[in-house]
Amino acid sequence: MIEKIEGGITAAQGFKAAGVHSGVKYRSLDLGLLTSDVPAKCFIGYTSNKVKAAPIQVMMEANPSELQAFVVNSGNANALTGKRGIEDVYTIRAHAAAALGIDEELVGVISTGLIGRFLDMPKILYGIDRAAKELTYGLEADSDFAEAIMTTDTRKKEAAYRVKLEDGSLITIAGVAKGSGMIAPHLKVLQGTTLSFIVTDAVLTENFKGTWQEILDDTFNMISVDGDQSTNDMSVLLANGLSGSEIADEDPNFIAALRKLMKELAYKVVEDGEGVTKVIEVEVRGAQSKEDAVAAVKSIIRSPLVKTAIFGSDPNYGRIMMALGNSGVDFDIEKVKLTIIGSGIEVPILECGMPVFEDQRSVDIVRMAMEGDTVKIIVTLGDGDYSAVGWGCDLSYDYVKINAEYST
Amino acid sequence: MIEKIEGGITAAQGFKAAGVHSGVKYRSLDLGLLTSDVPAKCFIGYTSNKVKAAPIQVMMEANPSELQAFVVNSGNANALTGKRGIEDVYTIRAHAAAALGIDEELVGVISTGLIGRFLDMPKILYGIDRAAKELTYGLEADSDFAEAIMTTDTRKKEAAYRVKLEDGSLITIAGVAKGSGMIAPHLKVLQGTTLSFIVTDAVLTENFKGTWQEILDDTFNMISVDGDQSTNDMSVLLANGLSGSEIADEDPNFIAALRKLMKELAYKVVEDGEGVTKVIEVEVRGAQSKEDAVAAVKSIIRSPLVKTAIFGSDPNYGRIMMALGNSGVDFDIEKVKLTIIGSGIEVPILECGMPVFEDQRSVDIVRMAMEGDTVKIIVTLGDGDYSAVGWGCDLSYDYVKINAEYST
Repeated sequence: MIEKIEGGITAAQGFKAAGVHSGVKYRSLDLGLLTSDVPAKCFIGYTSNKVKAAPIQVMMEANPSELQAFVVNSGNANALTGKRGIEDVYTIRAHAAAALGIDEELVGVISTGLIGRFLDMPKILYGIDRAAKELTYGLEADSDFAEAIMTTDTRKKEAAYRVKLEDGSLITIAGVAKGSGMIAPHLKVLQGTTLSFIVTDAVLTENFKGTWQEILDDTFNMISVDGDQSTNDMSVLLANGLSGSEIADEDPNFIAALRKLMKELAYKVVEDGEGVTKVIEVEVRGAQSKEDAVAAVKSIIRSPLVKTAIFGSDPNYGRIMMALGNSGVDFDIEKVKLTIIGSGIEVPILECGMPVFEDQRSVDIVRMAMEGDTVKIIVTLGDGDYSAVGWGCDLSYDYVKINAEYST
Repeated sequence: MIEKIEGGITAAQGFKAAGVHSGVKYRSLDLGLLTSDVPAKCFIGYTSNKVKAAPIQVMMEANPSELQAFVVNSGNANALTGKRGIEDVYTIRAHAAAALGIDEELVGVISTGLIGRFLDMPKILYGIDRAAKELTYGLEADSDFAEAIMTTDTRKKEAAYRVKLEDGSLITIAGVAKGSGMIAPHLKVLQGTTLSFIVTDAVLTENFKGTWQEILDDTFNMISVDGDQSTNDMSVLLANGLSGSEIADEDPNFIAALRKLMKELAYKVVEDGEGVTKVIEVEVRGAQSKEDAVAAVKSIIRSPLVKTAIFGSDPNYGRIMMALGNSGVDFDIEKVKLTIIGSGIEVPILECGMPVFEDQRSVDIVRMAMEGDTVKIIVTLGDGDYSAVGWGCDLSYDYVKINAEYST
């Protein structure tokens, strides 16, 4: 049983949160604090950008197996800040640990926002103190935390599920994400700026790591707003075990629910992509390997020419094939099928690598399909049994506007 | 001696050209014909997109070592057109050969325009007949040919140089290019939709192939408008030997002039990139290998976030480092230097991976530099002796407009 429930990050037992205004941003909430009543088993995926923000460097070095609290600030990424940036992370960690009365090693830290500026530390430390006093659970706390971690996001991204495990116990998985631009995460466990925090009161062990990477690969690692991977991407799973369930590492319901929740949050990120007017879903089928299927999906969802055509509902499907041809994937054009689904219409476009039609009426039908809020592209390569699905968004005037004026 | 001269594709001895209106496009010139009085040694670079237009497939299969004529149509790419597309290319070739009284094997064919539609053959064949009658040399013929091969281009791209070889003989190199969108060529000799035709009356042999690939790699293969490689990219060099010079394969003046001309044409393509308001030049120095330097340049010039920041003159230089970090190149952030040059100002931004400054006045100076028509970014990795330079353009509202409405 997997049941969607109301609420966000504090919906699972024993988790509390707060979101406050520290003053790094001019007006909005900009500092979030998340805690668990007891130390929680943690699983973290980090950006694979070679330029890593200071908090990413510190967390990767610490490589914690358990955490009890997470401090997140928005408005400043603490990236390209050298040794001073690193020291600031340690100061935040120590300050939060003292405010919460826990070990520093149990505090995680992440930042998101402008790159290349030092943190305004007095504001951050003041924010931590305030957040520590406001920690609580419930819808308001969920909402404040979700808001405090946003940058160019226009809405909060939360989800929660109640799951009955095979042992009969009831557990909760809840999550929150942020991200709107600089989105093309490629998160590696242990080693996205989309940030996501997923918490559960289920019991997990170290052995869950492989499954966590697999789910990340199929969800957050398959979304793209602009093809640019951030210096600060991070995806965190905290499992505090307070449900008293059996170990859920291999529980099919738990895995299915976690996958569902992470896909939902990842989808919300592209749905709120900078300047988005339409979500693009790309599915590649019949590839020779999973890697090929993923590469083909990514090449299509990242192509500016595909993205602008979809923005304009321009039935220029040749661009999809151009992008497929640039993916580095080997295929036989004479076996390729292309279908576009939108506005409730499913339109076959190519069969055996050639247009199914050529008259104006058919082109108008393609345009109608492309006018939907969600445009789904299905490419069948006919070369094998592997498939992949990814999500992206169109490229609009507003994307340009938002990013031409971001830091100013 | 390398001297820039007036004129385009017919500036070299023995070359003639014409550009006519065949009717594939509504009004403008859309069919170009280029001929040499005698068969010319030919060197061709083709798109490495896996989806190749019909004329690319035919030319790669024919793999000609000599050509005497080239037919180019714009408005329709003859791509995704299957067997019928291939047959159309053979028909064009045979028709042009008959009109010119030469062997079919001596006729090259290429198309550029919309993908996924069959050619309107009666119009194309009519156009060839008309062009064959109008063949001539001089500025008007140059201009007509240059115009006939354009798609979203807003201006013609021509250049010509007179060169004194080491043996004392005078030769001419002349060229024309088109390209505005779907530009990120990766041309392979013998095996990019920017098209370029370079002609010379110098004498070249088969041995020149390696040098030709090297020059392509440093010029056309280092430009990007949108990071999308076309199904139709092609770069052609024809050498008819009519100057009566010695073999110029290794002549330093010849090589320098050819490189200069191809860089000039490639630069003109980005200068006329779709919606361009600024040219971006990226130089990466101190890389461990040439491949690393090239990968780093390409990652920066293709990043939508870098491109929009430059469009808005937004001093958000952190995005340059984000893009560098996504290039797959290994480097030590603590050695990285970043400099931006524009509006006649050179601004050091990062030293040892950290901002050189942080006050508002300095940020204003970065903005001033970014307000230039050309913004040059220099990244020094400090890890080795290799460097590369590439050219791209900003991402503006007009880029979105042009591409959201292309086919309609």
